[in-house]
Amino acid sequence: MSAVQTRYPEAVIEADREVPIIRITRDFRATPAQLMKAHTDPELFVRWVGPDSISSRIVDWDARDGGSWRYVSSRGDEEFGFRGCFHTVSDEKIVQTFTFEGMPDHVALETLWFTDLGDGMTRLHAQSLCDSFADRDGWLASGMETGVNEGYAKLDGLLSSGEV
Amino acid sequence: MSAVQTRYPEAVIEADREVPIIRITRDFRATPAQLMKAHTDPELFVRWVGPDSISSRIVDWDARDGGSWRYVSSRGDEEFGFRGCFHTVSDEKIVQTFTFEGMPDHVALETLWFTDLGDGMTRLHAQSLCDSFADRDGWLASGMETGVNEGYAKLDGLLSSGEV
Repeated sequence: MSAVQTRYPEAVIEADREVPIIRITRDFRATPAQLMKAHTDPELFVRWVGPDSISSRIVDWDARDGGSWRYVSSRGDEEFGFRGCFHTVSDEKIVQTFTFEGMPDHVALETLWFTDLGDGMTRLHAQSLCDSFADRDGWLASGMETGVNEGYAKLDGLLSSGEV
Repeated sequence: MSAVQTRYPEAVIEADREVPIIRITRDFRATPAQLMKAHTDPELFVRWVGPDSISSRIVDWDARDGGSWRYVSSRGDEEFGFRGCFHTVSDEKIVQTFTFEGMPDHVALETLWFTDLGDGMTRLHAQSLCDSFADRDGWLASGMETGVNEGYAKLDGLLSSGEV
């Protein structure tokens, strides 16, 4: 008998039933350390984050406990700012706040961690906690899956080309 | 006819029914600016935070968007560390993360704001968002109300003596 293990070559984006959380699960051909680097190195991060239609630049980035971050994404003449603070940055986990500056009263608490699956594969787990179901469901209805999927596809490319 | 308005001379600590949030409501004889100062000035903050049985000292404190904070409370030979980062510090609101260092995997997102009630009174609203009901209910069962009530009574004293 062989164990059948679910794989996530595409991101699965789920709404938790009990609490106002969005959960994302996605497998990568990478080590946990490579995925951590892709999320903490600002030069790498802006090369893959978000949908293909935007480009991003770092404004502030201090990836350590108590540090903060801000980046701006551009599409044509439009600019979208995002900012937050890093509560925890360890080898295993990132906990940070997240705000789209266009809706400054909406603050999410994000947690990111990785599971080594063996065979060169690692599973990314991301959790975004909002303070209401309305806020959480607004994010889910915003088209966020395009940015998640296109962003992770770019990260796949950086990993396969050896740039991470 | 006169409007009857509920007053909160003692803190009301409530568990939200829908989401894993603790809500605290408490009235003070103070202006919103005085209450904001009592929460952002580190020298003032350590004079009132927590139960009467402890004393606290600031280790890190940078009360601005993207800053961080850490304080240590002592009771006899025991020390308890608390830390987090400030997501938002404005005239109206503080949004910050909160961790008791004895349970580093539990991170809450706290929001604090004030309502001017007139007649020299201001209402404090505090919200702590956890990522599970178990975590939230653990805080409620921890005896936190002692620290809340004794801390706010000390703050009443600082306000009435003109020290804030």
